[in-house]
Amino acid sequence: MLDLTQDVRALTAAIVDIESVSGAEQALADQVERALTALPHLKVDRSGQTIVARTELGRGERVLIAGHLDTVPVAANLPSRVEGDLLYGCGTSDMKAGVAVALKLAATVPVPNRDVTYVFYDCEEIEADRNGLTRLARDHADWLTADFAVLMEPTDGVIEGGCQGTVRAEIVVTGKRAHSARSWFGVNAIHGIEPVLARLNAYQERLPVVDGLEYHEGLNAVGVRGGVAGNVIPDECVVTVNYRFAPDLSIEQAQEHVREVFDSYEVRFVDAASGARPGLTHPVAAAFTAAVGGTPRAKLGWTDVARFSALGVPAVNYGPGDPNLAHQQGEYVSLAKIVDSERAMLAWLAS
Amino acid sequence: MLDLTQDVRALTAAIVDIESVSGAEQALADQVERALTALPHLKVDRSGQTIVARTELGRGERVLIAGHLDTVPVAANLPSRVEGDLLYGCGTSDMKAGVAVALKLAATVPVPNRDVTYVFYDCEEIEADRNGLTRLARDHADWLTADFAVLMEPTDGVIEGGCQGTVRAEIVVTGKRAHSARSWFGVNAIHGIEPVLARLNAYQERLPVVDGLEYHEGLNAVGVRGGVAGNVIPDECVVTVNYRFAPDLSIEQAQEHVREVFDSYEVRFVDAASGARPGLTHPVAAAFTAAVGGTPRAKLGWTDVARFSALGVPAVNYGPGDPNLAHQQGEYVSLAKIVDSERAMLAWLAS
Repeated sequence: MLDLTQDVRALTAAIVDIESVSGAEQALADQVERALTALPHLKVDRSGQTIVARTELGRGERVLIAGHLDTVPVAANLPSRVEGDLLYGCGTSDMKAGVAVALKLAATVPVPNRDVTYVFYDCEEIEADRNGLTRLARDHADWLTADFAVLMEPTDGVIEGGCQGTVRAEIVVTGKRAHSARSWFGVNAIHGIEPVLARLNAYQERLPVVDGLEYHEGLNAVGVRGGVAGNVIPDECVVTVNYRFAPDLSIEQAQEHVREVFDSYEVRFVDAASGARPGLTHPVAAAFTAAVGGTPRAKLGWTDVARFSALGVPAVNYGPGDPNLAHQQGEYVSLAKIVDSERAMLAWLAS
Repeated sequence: MLDLTQDVRALTAAIVDIESVSGAEQALADQVERALTALPHLKVDRSGQTIVARTELGRGERVLIAGHLDTVPVAANLPSRVEGDLLYGCGTSDMKAGVAVALKLAATVPVPNRDVTYVFYDCEEIEADRNGLTRLARDHADWLTADFAVLMEPTDGVIEGGCQGTVRAEIVVTGKRAHSARSWFGVNAIHGIEPVLARLNAYQERLPVVDGLEYHEGLNAVGVRGGVAGNVIPDECVVTVNYRFAPDLSIEQAQEHVREVFDSYEVRFVDAASGARPGLTHPVAAAFTAAVGGTPRAKLGWTDVARFSALGVPAVNYGPGDPNLAHQQGEYVSLAKIVDSERAMLAWLAS
């Protein structure tokens, strides 16, 4: 059984050494469930390979601490190994160090100053419809009730608030086919995207401040396709654009903005995910930032905090891992940062 | 055996009814060889499914009359059928009507006013390296010696002089990858093609007069590709352009022009084919245009006349078929135009 009394650094290594690639988390989930069930101060529930444990002290506030159990595929980087201050191995940064900190808190803070719900979930690294949080939000939304959530994804020990949303759209320009030897009988759709690109090049992105954090938007072409054959004037050219928007906009508002930028063009929306407000203005979040210290910054990439936001739970990303090392063969985590992270969380919950 | 004494309209139908899709011309080639070999005034050679027959009268001029024996695949449009003035069937316009006219001339003009070489070749409708003229130019260039050539491709009975050349090139724009949530760390290569498209949109094409015929050039994008993934700022975008150039330029000059238009960009040439001058200023061509009548026009699309041009033989396209019907299921030819074409060619060679 997982020994939750051992040092958080050793616990991290132990968890890393239980392989748990997305879809194959059962061994680790079983160990986590057994270790938490052994703790009398926690109520433990399970749904598939997702384990939820909570204190039920009747506090006025409840906070949620979450981490995913799965990793990207192993790349000849297991078992873990220590070099100086660094622990190497698949999932060290993303995000078993964060999971270890959460498990330590669960074990060592039986009477926290606010009620805590710990969530250890599966399938974060793969398609959204298999994601454990997606499933929980659908089947057991009550398990996720909280005033504030900390997702222990790697942030290098800095609080990253909320996340930006994303909208993808195809801008469609049409023309008229012709043989390229008699091009004047046609209308060249590829030539026709010049004004679309001009609008993208002239675009002034917003840097809005939301709940005290400055976000940084972007509107970019991420794909372009056009062409029928080497001797044909093409009758269609499609530019795929990606709008990353700050969490003061809804998906609908973001789509409306894209429509406005490309007014007079056909715009087909492809996919979308809402952002998440950082929620740092909430008192429980203020206590969290005071305990962790440092200057919170805005999260620009999309993360699972948006799933909490969709449930009405403000959420931040905060974890000891280094986001730049995620998904890399040479992934590692600083052992000192794991200890720092545990200390900060203890200061928040046990003081 | 093919009866070359029958009316040219009936002969056309007879030839159409001998199926000869590219690569399967042997039955028709055999019939053509046998019919021509039976004519004592012709010397007949054969290479594969290509038949060459010539008069050897020691005239001061030699002209070449050529047609391909093959057709595109049959599309439930054989055997041929007549409706009013129209003969329907696969290959009627492209180009068995022209082949029939050439065979009639071969049979009925034993003593032409200039020596004549008749060329009936295979595999025109498919890849260039299987083309009978390509093979002949390589293995038997002497068989193709002439002062002037008439390629009896469908032109609706109008002389179309020479042909334009074609050059294709890739204009490569590079950038720097980044996550689209932090796009300012990258350089968007798709955005970077805006000036390339601006040059294409501003391009003023030449309409040069070459040997008395006005050509019409064009420089067009025929393809564009760029994009890595829906969340990545792309580091490369490639615009494929096609320059159709008048026959006063060589391939090298055409490529130099493309390089000039896109100076400061990486330009990769993909393929090229030279144009062909119409050669209508040659005396033997003048006699031809006088016999045929009408106003010659420039050929804009690329045809096999360029292969003659490459051998130093000026060449024109002239045939009774309708070029707009080529390769269509409902292909037909006007019987009256076949007769007109035979009459014009007789006036040129037998007067």
